[in-house]
This record gives sequence, C-alpha cells and structure tokens, in this order.
Amino acid sequence: MVEQHIASAFDRDLEAIQAQIMKMGGLVEAAIMDAARALETRDEELAQQVRQGDKAIDGLEELINEEAARVIAIRAPAAVDLRLVLSVMKISGNLERIGDYAKNIAKRTAVLAQGPNVSESAAAMRRMAREVELMLKDALDSYIQRDVELAQDVIARDRDVDQMYNALFREFLTFMMEDPRNITPCMHLHFIAKNVERMGDHVTSIAEQVVYLVTGDKPEDDRQKADTTSSVPQEV
Amino acid sequence: MVEQHIASAFDRDLEAIQAQIMKMGGLVEAAIMDAARALETRDEELAQQVRQGDKAIDGLEELINEEAARVIAIRAPAAVDLRLVLSVMKISGNLERIGDYAKNIAKRTAVLAQGPNVSESAAAMRRMAREVELMLKDALDSYIQRDVELAQDVIARDRDVDQMYNALFREFLTFMMEDPRNITPCMHLHFIAKNVERMGDHVTSIAEQVVYLVTGDKPEDDRQKADTTSSVPQEV
Repeated sequence: MVEQHIASAFDRDLEAIQAQIMKMGGLVEAAIMDAARALETRDEELAQQVRQGDKAIDGLEELINEEAARVIAIRAPAAVDLRLVLSVMKISGNLERIGDYAKNIAKRTAVLAQGPNVSESAAAMRRMAREVELMLKDALDSYIQRDVELAQDVIARDRDVDQMYNALFREFLTFMMEDPRNITPCMHLHFIAKNVERMGDHVTSIAEQVVYLVTGDKPEDDRQKADTTSSVPQEV
Repeated sequence: MVEQHIASAFDRDLEAIQAQIMKMGGLVEAAIMDAARALETRDEELAQQVRQGDKAIDGLEELINEEAARVIAIRAPAAVDLRLVLSVMKISGNLERIGDYAKNIAKRTAVLAQGPNVSESAAAMRRMAREVELMLKDALDSYIQRDVELAQDVIARDRDVDQMYNALFREFLTFMMEDPRNITPCMHLHFIAKNVERMGDHVTSIAEQVVYLVTGDKPEDDRQKADTTSSVPQEV
C-alpha cells in the first residue's frame, strides 16, 4: 500500500513537470513563428517582443530543472522512472536552446530591417521555420503520448529542413557574388537560416528522447546529416 | 555510522565521475588545438583524426550521464550533493558540445585545404582557439578546486574571445568584398570563427557552474555579450 502511494505521488509529480514542458513548448513554438514573421514583414516591434519573451522561456527551464531535481531527491526514482525525469531535463534544455535561436533571429532582424530587401529569402525562411514549428508540435505530442511512430516521423522530416537550408545557402552565395552590397545582409540571412536548421536538430533530439524512453534504444550516433554545406567546394 | 558510510560512498562515487570529467576535458582540449593546427597547416590527416576522436568524447559523456544517474538513484543525494551531481551532467554536456564544434571545424578544414590560401586568418583563429583551450583548462581546474576566483577570471576572458571573433568577422567581410572568389572560403572561415566563439561560451557556462556550486548564486542571465556582429550595419 505504501509503495502504491509512493508510485502515484511520483506520477503526480511527473505530470506536473510535463505540464510545464508543454507550456514551455507552447512559448517556444510561438517564438519560432513570431521570429520568422518579424523577419519577413520587417516588424521590429514583434522582433523586440521575441527577444523579451525569451526570459519567460529561460525561467521555465530553470523551474523545470529545479522541480525535476526535487523529485529525484524526494522520490529517489529507479530505472525507468529516473530515465523519465532525466528526459524532462534534456527536453527542457533543447527547448531553451530553440528559444535562444529564435531570440538570435529577432536580434538580427532588427539590423536587417534597416537595410534594403535583399531577396525573397525571408519567405523561404518562414516556410522553413513553419516546418520546424510543426515538427516541434509533433515531437511534444509524441512525448506526451509516448508515440514512437510520430517521433520517428519527426526525425525523418529533419532531412527536409536540412535540404531547405542547403538551398538557401547556395542562394545566398549567388547573391553575394552578384553584388558585393549583398554580402553583409546575406551573412546575416545565412546565420538566420543556420539557426533555423539548428532548431530542427534540437527538435530531432526531443524526438530521439521519445524513441529512447519508449523503446530503450539509443538513437544512432551518426544519423545522416543532410547539411552538406561543410563540403561545398571552394568555387561554386 | 551508517550515515557516515553512505556519505563517503557518495564522495567516492562523485570523485570517480569527476575523474571521468577531467579525462573528457583532456580529450576536448586536445581536439580544440588539433582542429586549429590542422586548419592552419592544412593537415587533412590531423583533421580526420579530430573527426574520429569525437566518438570517444561522446562515449565519455554517455558514461558520465549514466554514472550520474546511477549515483542519484542509489544514493538519493539531497540539496548540495544533488546539485553537485547535476552539475557534472551539465559540464559533460558543455564538453560534448565543444567537442562537436572541434569536429565541425575539422570537417570544414578538409574542404578549405583543397582551395587556395585566403588569408592569414588561420593564424588568428589558432590564437583564438588557444585562448579558448586555456580558458577550458582553467575552468576545469576551478571546478576541481572549487576556485571561484579562477572561475570568474575565465568568465571575464570570454570577452577577449568575442572581440577576436568580431575582428575576424570584419576581416572576412573585407576579403569577400575585395574579390568574389573569396566568398565561399570566407563563409567557411567565418563559420569556423563562430564555432570557436561558441566554444568560449560553453567554457564560460562551465565556469558559471563553478560559481553557482560554490556560492549558490546563479550567474547573471544577461551577461554582456561582446559578439556585436548581429548589430553590424548593412553597409560596412
């Protein structure tokens, strides 16, 4: 009976933390889309909101880590339960980093908004951000429902994001070669694209956590990366 | 008496994990310097070694996390002791990411080695990498000795790294504007410089952990960033 009582107290604790994860996920999803929209519409005020909003995301990560540590200390969960609590800490870490990338995009947006419009790249970047946001939504759903199939679908979709990034990288190179005045804005745009691509990597990490939690299988260490720009030859 | 026994068992466990952290730190320090040397001397073989070596670093992170989880589960440490174990997991996470950046530099080195030498930037980058490596060495020493002063010194030195990065960023912009053929190699070099700068951020996180462990004070959320390139105006 005592054991029953302890188990359900642990479950209640875990559910409370998971609710905070979902709240954090909601804020991060909004930050991704707001950052992309601010970039496309050159909306400096919205960009400023994204930068301010990152504090709430960071605060939630801290809260979640403190709660998780408290649960570990009080309940001393073993094996599978411990794995669950540790996964919560990892996922909140991933969410915090995605929020940081959104903040970074918002910072660069303020600078880009002061110059001329370089290209239609902002729209392509919004589509890329939209894909990452949908992946994040599905990753968090797969986490709450312990749905391995959905998690694996998210992992597979990261290839699309990588391909969108590769296409943008080549586009920026072309713009820079066409006109030296494009060099500085394109450097910023390239960083923004890379940040969105990195967001996708962190969403994938969340999905991999789900696979690990449910199946006990560690995701492959060397999952194939589709960002091939590190091997783009010298002369394009 | 029983409590005494448990306490010293915890200490032994913690020391064993800290030894693994130091081993991991040694591998990461070597990876930083090897990656920078390979870039400067265009040594593709050394770059390949760095890429291969990252597996050992990743393996150590996994080992450390498993050990830490085992200690939490078996010893159920409270308060300060729990904070210590959690810090070990964070530090190993930072080290793993620094190793990833070194691997990424090595990947780009193989590509750059095939083209003409763009500039003397590789030497500047080696100096920057050397500074980060020294910071890492001191951060790990400050961790083992619980030396807050040394940790704060490391945090302060991150500004130098950020300034070195800013100088390189402007140099690359100039090269690209001078000659379009420099654009592609400079994009890679810029990524490499940014990776070294990010390594510095992760070293700083380790030092901040030390400050937190010893003083209980969370480092400031908005420590001043000296990477000002996100506010470089459109036309340089």
